[in-house]
Amino acid sequence: MTSAHSSGVPHRQPNVLPPALRSTIDAIQPLDQAALAAARERQAQLTKPPGSLGRLEALSIQLAGITGQAQPLLPRKTVITLAADHGVTAEGVSLYPAEVTPQMVANFLRGGAAINVLARAAGARVLVADVGVAGALDDLAAPDGAAVQFVSARLALGTANIARGPAMSIDLALQAIETGVRLVESEYARGVDVVATGEMGIGNTTASSCIVAALTGAAVDVVTGRGTGLDDARLAHKRNVVTRALATNQPDPSQPLDVLAKVGGLEIAGLVGVILGAASHRLPVVVDGFISGAAALVAARLAPQVRPYLIAAHRSAEPGHAVVLDALDLRPLLDLDLRLGEGTGAALAFPLLDAACLILREMATFASAGVAGPEAG
Amino acid sequence: MTSAHSSGVPHRQPNVLPPALRSTIDAIQPLDQAALAAARERQAQLTKPPGSLGRLEALSIQLAGITGQAQPLLPRKTVITLAADHGVTAEGVSLYPAEVTPQMVANFLRGGAAINVLARAAGARVLVADVGVAGALDDLAAPDGAAVQFVSARLALGTANIARGPAMSIDLALQAIETGVRLVESEYARGVDVVATGEMGIGNTTASSCIVAALTGAAVDVVTGRGTGLDDARLAHKRNVVTRALATNQPDPSQPLDVLAKVGGLEIAGLVGVILGAASHRLPVVVDGFISGAAALVAARLAPQVRPYLIAAHRSAEPGHAVVLDALDLRPLLDLDLRLGEGTGAALAFPLLDAACLILREMATFASAGVAGPEAG
Repeated sequence: MTSAHSSGVPHRQPNVLPPALRSTIDAIQPLDQAALAAARERQAQLTKPPGSLGRLEALSIQLAGITGQAQPLLPRKTVITLAADHGVTAEGVSLYPAEVTPQMVANFLRGGAAINVLARAAGARVLVADVGVAGALDDLAAPDGAAVQFVSARLALGTANIARGPAMSIDLALQAIETGVRLVESEYARGVDVVATGEMGIGNTTASSCIVAALTGAAVDVVTGRGTGLDDARLAHKRNVVTRALATNQPDPSQPLDVLAKVGGLEIAGLVGVILGAASHRLPVVVDGFISGAAALVAARLAPQVRPYLIAAHRSAEPGHAVVLDALDLRPLLDLDLRLGEGTGAALAFPLLDAACLILREMATFASAGVAGPEAG
Repeated sequence: MTSAHSSGVPHRQPNVLPPALRSTIDAIQPLDQAALAAARERQAQLTKPPGSLGRLEALSIQLAGITGQAQPLLPRKTVITLAADHGVTAEGVSLYPAEVTPQMVANFLRGGAAINVLARAAGARVLVADVGVAGALDDLAAPDGAAVQFVSARLALGTANIARGPAMSIDLALQAIETGVRLVESEYARGVDVVATGEMGIGNTTASSCIVAALTGAAVDVVTGRGTGLDDARLAHKRNVVTRALATNQPDPSQPLDVLAKVGGLEIAGLVGVILGAASHRLPVVVDGFISGAAALVAARLAPQVRPYLIAAHRSAEPGHAVVLDALDLRPLLDLDLRLGEGTGAALAFPLLDAACLILREMATFASAGVAGPEAG
């Protein structure tokens, strides 16, 4: 285990990717044109006015293109929820103490958190991985038959305080990305049809605000929100901390790895790997909210060809999320004022993916049902 | 069976309700205050920042208040899809011929329509009722084990052409409302926890535009859209037909029954009954799109106390729906550019209701999970 503090100085060239990550990125293919065309053609034949199922039709076509199947189904779903701590919590940026990170990991493993409930409702597994929690994790045995699994992959005792220096080295950020790739590779080997991103880490909206400000050039006030519920005074303080972190670290917007290492987080870096790894295996990636969105933004800057694999689950109440969605040109499926993270919004979107697939597969066509088409009567 | 044409002149006083309907309306109670309070209190104790599940929390509290249960569950779901024809199709307001109404009813019964697919995905039954189809309905045996049921309750061979006179008499509109009440009563007797509204009727966006314009005072151009996909010229023609229907019939905006009878439809009137009947039994009502919304608007004008029982499933692509949602002060759960009807948007919203209920019931509390609350660390 590496201490974040001893590895706090980037020393690798951020624009040179290690060969394993390079080959993951190179494996991300364009969407399958034949499957896209077949799905589009079938949508036009189903017993409904063309286009009348709106975004569900577009989603079904996207899922066909991602999977390469004209009539995909996504029965095996996994929410990959990565946990890590953030040194910036020392600045008082959250209402919750950093100890809540390991406490919530334990809650995930007992099945009592929101992500457990919503994943169960959607028929999804939850894969929880510690990629950088600072505190002790006890009592992590999931009950028998629980649809949750824990992986210990801790790379550091959290990140360093970004208000005073870089969160981590480029090497550590790359290790975290590769950890995410490995996690999704192991899910792929086990058998999975769609993955969703989730995270837990007290302080991680602060890191995400820094990433989004650095990569998009958006103003700090626009990308920094109340997180778990800060009042006006605490929000003003958090904005000052974000401003300070950016001034101290001077992340280079043309170098996504530099941004990630200097002002990111270990779970965010891990999610970058999850996203890239999933796309390299033609798996649809359901991106949760603001923190997952910041990871998706880094992933898309590293590998623009990942973009068509992304499905934005929802529009978070955290204001910086709108900046992320705009930057990625993603329109979210849901808009429910969620701001919990964990992958909860992504789990809520799973039934819409299933519905889109089932429409394509199970609806009758005008010809098979003997229904008159437009202007044909 | 009454011919719409022979019953085309209203003769009952529209402000005097028959005793059966009066007693249905009088049975609609305010939401249960104790259940609302219990759900609200529990939401505050669950292991998440207060409010972080946004509209899902509000929905769970509403469902508690509707059902009178502090931790409701809604396993038994029925989409009630009413079908009827519209004499106004003679004016060329739809791309599809009126024969599509019975053809689609047959498609519902064979399980091949979008509502079948989406209801199955949500674990819901579909109850299809003919309340006023004009054509013959053959071959209506649902396959064994199909989660669909047909009820023949035809009151007329469609409505009369509203561009030339009233759609139906007040008596016929009341019969259709009472038919809807009876349908939901029989579902209630069978056992149901939540109902959704759906409809099929070529021409029914035209009738709905007339209802919404009449009841809200909104401009014809604002409430009249492309329906199943009219081009600009056909849309302009449809707006002229709506304008003519309103000028010919002069519906009285202070008399919802007068509006419903003069410019409505039999399936719309039936849905008014479904909505009132469901609320009278403390059943949540998931309201689909524009046509269902027009019915909900009539229901809420007849019985304002029905409003808290309504859950708007989605925001339709049909522009008049926004007027309906504003008039009812409803914020829809989904915004997916749907414009199909049948109850499809409502079926897509069912998983969000389940999720809201499960959060309330299954999540751990801060105390039970040993997680520190805000500012408590």
